[in-house]
Amino acid sequence: MDKVNLAEKLTHFTDHWRPRVVGELNGQHVKLAKLQGEFVWHHHEAADELFLVLAGRLVIQLRDREITLAPGELFIVPRGVEHRPVADAEVHVLLFEPAGTLNTGNVTDEHTVRDLERV
Amino acid sequence: MDKVNLAEKLTHFTDHWRPRVVGELNGQHVKLAKLQGEFVWHHHEAADELFLVLAGRLVIQLRDREITLAPGELFIVPRGVEHRPVADAEVHVLLFEPAGTLNTGNVTDEHTVRDLERV
Repeated sequence: MDKVNLAEKLTHFTDHWRPRVVGELNGQHVKLAKLQGEFVWHHHEAADELFLVLAGRLVIQLRDREITLAPGELFIVPRGVEHRPVADAEVHVLLFEPAGTLNTGNVTDEHTVRDLERV
Repeated sequence: MDKVNLAEKLTHFTDHWRPRVVGELNGQHVKLAKLQGEFVWHHHEAADELFLVLAGRLVIQLRDREITLAPGELFIVPRGVEHRPVADAEVHVLLFEPAGTLNTGNVTDEHTVRDLERV
């Protein structure tokens, strides 16, 4: 077990909407992702999902409001709640969620990532 | 559910070694703490524990080595592994661990916090 430098891990990939696993604890994954553009509306049936913004500005659209996150701000999307992440410019985020959580939740589309990589 | 601004939450307390809960998901707590000085050697029987440094420089002593964390660096102490956090100057950390995890693990001393506050 080594320490994880988030900035260093972020140099290992450039693509958007494809989270990488950087740690695992208590059945939960710690992931990093780069986001840009509009994601798909989805929810996670049995997983709460934490977004912590490291760089950039992330909008998390909910059906009744939207949350705007700057660096150093986090938001937990409760299980079952439909949401859509939107980033006008590139955003770097840290995600905490149960291992096995599919990025597009109940939806399958071109964003769906089934083979998670570790960096 | 509102967003959490970590810097703002850190203004709500000044004491050391007394983590505050700022979020909960999937049975896990997200906590913030200010650390300064030497903590007690301890382990958590059934909980892996994540330390993410936000400000300052944290040393996590293990029995066979030590890990030094700068801002933007995280380390996961696996369950059962004895550790001791040490901070020469004040450090701000985000912790991620199962709800109910006692800060001093298998040890009870003057650092033990049983009544967790939320900020």
